[in-house]
This record gives sequence, C-alpha cells and structure tokens, in this order.
Amino acid sequence: MIMFDYKLLAALAAVVEQGGFERGAQALGLSQSAISQRIKLLEARVGQPVLVRSARPQPTELGQRLLNHVQQVRLLEGDLQQWVPMLDEGGPVERLRLALNADSLATWWAAAVGDFCAERGVLLDMVMEDQEVGLKRMRAGEVAGCVCASPRPVTGGRCVPLGAMRYRGLASPAFIARHFPDGVRPGELARAPAIVFGPDDQLQHRYLADLGVSGGFIHHLCPSSEGFVRLTCGGLGWGLVPEQQVRGELERGELVELVPGQVIDVPLYWHHWRNGGELLAALTAHLLRNAAQMLVPIAG
Amino acid sequence: MIMFDYKLLAALAAVVEQGGFERGAQALGLSQSAISQRIKLLEARVGQPVLVRSARPQPTELGQRLLNHVQQVRLLEGDLQQWVPMLDEGGPVERLRLALNADSLATWWAAAVGDFCAERGVLLDMVMEDQEVGLKRMRAGEVAGCVCASPRPVTGGRCVPLGAMRYRGLASPAFIARHFPDGVRPGELARAPAIVFGPDDQLQHRYLADLGVSGGFIHHLCPSSEGFVRLTCGGLGWGLVPEQQVRGELERGELVELVPGQVIDVPLYWHHWRNGGELLAALTAHLLRNAAQMLVPIAG
Repeated sequence: MIMFDYKLLAALAAVVEQGGFERGAQALGLSQSAISQRIKLLEARVGQPVLVRSARPQPTELGQRLLNHVQQVRLLEGDLQQWVPMLDEGGPVERLRLALNADSLATWWAAAVGDFCAERGVLLDMVMEDQEVGLKRMRAGEVAGCVCASPRPVTGGRCVPLGAMRYRGLASPAFIARHFPDGVRPGELARAPAIVFGPDDQLQHRYLADLGVSGGFIHHLCPSSEGFVRLTCGGLGWGLVPEQQVRGELERGELVELVPGQVIDVPLYWHHWRNGGELLAALTAHLLRNAAQMLVPIAG
Repeated sequence: MIMFDYKLLAALAAVVEQGGFERGAQALGLSQSAISQRIKLLEARVGQPVLVRSARPQPTELGQRLLNHVQQVRLLEGDLQQWVPMLDEGGPVERLRLALNADSLATWWAAAVGDFCAERGVLLDMVMEDQEVGLKRMRAGEVAGCVCASPRPVTGGRCVPLGAMRYRGLASPAFIARHFPDGVRPGELARAPAIVFGPDDQLQHRYLADLGVSGGFIHHLCPSSEGFVRLTCGGLGWGLVPEQQVRGELERGELVELVPGQVIDVPLYWHHWRNGGELLAALTAHLLRNAAQMLVPIAG
C-alpha cells in the first residue's frame, strides 16, 4: 500500500530545493496557487506543518523527514527505469545529496566523479561539513553519502576507505624571512601566526606535536580551503595545506615547506546508505577506482 | 565604574575561542580547574549560564553578548597601547572577527590585508557568510566588519564601497563539446546542468535573464568557491566564476567563456563598527586603497 500522494511530496521538495513558492512552481510547471494548495493538502494529510513560511521556506522537522523519504524513493525509482523505461517521463534528473569535507571538495572530488555524473546525468547537491556533522546528517538520512575522516560506519550505512590526503606545512618566502631569518626552528613556530580552518581543525596542533612542540600557538581562523591557501600565499601565517591543492604555488616558489618532508596524511572514507540503490552503488565503485589514483595509500 | 571582572570574561573567551576547557586553560596558562572556577564565578555574577557545556562548549545568548563586549574592549584597549605601552603585557595579539563572502575570501581578500596584518600583528577570525547573515552578525555585534554586496549600513556601522567582482559564465571545453556541439546558444543553456553555490546564489539566474532566457534550469549545488571551480573544470556544469579566480585556467584553455564578453559585476561593500577604534579605522583605510586595485569600479 502506498501511503503518500507523491505529487504533494514533489511540491514540498520543489519549494525547498528552489528556495521559494514562486520558483518551486516554475520548476514543476505549476501556478503558484497550485503549489500552495498541494502543500496545504499535504499538511492536512499529515496533520502538521511541513514548511516554516518565510522569505526562504524551510522544512519543519517532519518536512525534512518527508524530503529524505522522497530522496530515497527517487533513488530506488532510478533503479527501476532501466527495466521500465516508460517510467521516465522526462522528469527531474537524479539528484544525490552528499556531505563532503571542505578540502576534498576543493581538490580531488570533482575530477573523481565528473565523468560519472556527466554520463549518468546525475546532479549533485553537496553540503560542506566537518566529519561529525556530516555523519550526523548520514544518520538522520539527510545525505545519501559522506566523505570524511571517520572510519566508523553509521547505522544503515557502509563505510569504505578511499585513500589519504597528504598535507604539508607551508608558508610564503616573505613570511619565513620575516619570522625565521635564520631558518625555521620548530620551537619558534608556535610564536609565528598559524592559520587554522576552524575549531575542529587539529592539523596545525598535530604538526607541532610531531615536531615535539607542545602548548598553544597564535593563529588566524579561516573557514575556507581556498581562503586558507590565499592567506598562506599572502604571508599572513603558516598552515597545513593539501599538497595537491598547491602544486603550482610550490613549483613557482610562492609557497615553501617549513620542514621539508614533514607530512600529515589524513585518511578519508566514503560513507553511503546500504539501501541507496544501483546509482549509489555505481557511484561508489567509480569513486573507489578514481580516488585511489588521486590520494596516497592509507598507512598501516 | 567598571562592572566586570575581565579575568572572568577572558576565561570565557578562551574556552570558546579554543573550543574547550582544556585548550582554553592551556592558552591562558591556567589549570583546567582554575578556568572552570572562573566560568562558574562569572555565571554566579551574571546569574545565568554563559556556556552550554558540550564536547565543544558554545556560548549562551548572554555569553555571546559578553564575548562581543570583550572584543570591543580589546579593540579600544589596542588604541590605548600606543600611549601607554606598559599596558601591553605580551598578552594575546589583537584579534579581529570579520564576516566575508566566500568568493572574496577565495580571491582578493588575503592580498589586500596581508601586509596590514603582518605589520600590525593582527590575527583575523573570519566567518564565511552570505550577505544577509553577515550583516545580521554585524547588527548583533558578533563581527567587527563585513564584506558583502549590500550597500545598506547597519545601525552603529558605516559602509563604504570597495569595488566590484567581475564574474564570467564559464565551462570546460569537454562540457561545451558535449552539450553544445554546434556552439553555445543561450536558449539551450538552461538544459545543460549549471552549478549554483547555494539557494541564495542568483548569479546563474541573472546570467540567463541577461541573455533573455527565463524559467528554471537544472543544476548542481556546491557551497565552496574552490569546489565550484573544480566542478566547472571537471565538466560537471557551467557557472559564474570570479574572473580573478581562474586567470590560469582561462589562459591554459581549461575553462572557456560561454558567451564571450558577457559579464556580471557584483559590487562589494565594507561594513565596520563606528566605535571600532583606531585599528579598525586603519584596516579600513588600507583595505580601501588595496581593494580598488583588485576589483573593477562599481558601475553607475
């Protein structure tokens, strides 16, 4: 027995995804009053509001649960289409909602999944989250997959290793000349400003600890991968940067290593729903193949 | 009359900025029980909790107000130090909390403020926010300055124009060959996947509207400036990219213009507290001088 009228759920998804009733209606080829009526009917059926009406309508908690369900059903319907091609009425393209750590999104991710998305006509809806929040979204069913540093699968999910990102401690030549005129001594690093991505970024702490330096250090906070590189190049501080993000800067000498050869490898894992259907399984296979070439092997 | 014991407020600031009691204590050179006691004493004085105790302690609403006050006092104290140098006990370096739009942080920002921060020993605590949220934080006193596209000053703040970022509609040659084998026709753009930064990013809509195309279009969602460029290079979609972010990709032909010469200029404004002290005023002067060279003039 099918409990839901999926036309009503599609209206909810369109309003939220398009960020408003007018644009949602446009996306579905409906009038604005028609889409409003569908949302009201949906709310009458479930007996609760599904949207918080504001300039940008947000789903209520129940609304979010319904949207997660819509995403799962869409993925499973996608599997059916190869057997029942007439099901495909030229409706919206497949949409995958995924959580990624910022540095993956800024470096290898697009090259690893680009061909797959182009060939299968998949649209990605990406959210950028540090690992704990990304996994929380997996658990809540808000995203179908997640790239992060945690190897612990969530309930209902699988987890496979992708490889590790290699970080190097870098700064601009001007920064080094200013703070370390006699060469970089690890003990002095803590007194020169570092750059930290955010409160959860422990890479700079680990780098200092690996060099035998303990205690606090002064730092800027910059929650943007590319901003982090720009601040480093601009001589504002030193920081741990994925080597693949700054190949050009290293070649041109715009950034140099503080302690040559001193690296930190951060293992990355791909979390995905068990019941995500064929599309998610195919993406997983594609991702595993490509990521291995773009990342370094996970140690141990 | 001084109402507050600033030692207690400094303890609160350290716990929040360092993301925990242990690291906060370390930063102040205190034991963990000493810093806990200070927080408890502060809460006893104000009669309310100032922190929500969790793995990562978060300030309560009152706690946030106290932190904003600490930041303002620190800025004003900074002004005093040039007259009363003995006030400077080698304590924490000046810290400026600012909100920036993602594309500024990913491009011109660091080059525009790098020298200033290095010379004055200023540490930046940056938050990345779209314009409405950034201005809300200005209004709440959570940030001392904000770069965004809104020209309306908030209460207690000033607003000065910086210049405009120039965006071009770009895609990879492979993407263009796949979707537009006979050349890019604007009317067909809406049927090839676009990339959109987030629900508030209207640049792709404006670009299509400028080309006389109305209605919806299919798109990926990618809330990362550098991820956006990587997706474009990877052939996943077309999108509006700041030209200064992809000079190399354009020169090497890794990205090409969809409609040559068709640009969107986004004016940027610097919002800052009126009572932010000398440091903020000097940063403003420095920023205005440098940004003008890195951005294009604001039209009209």
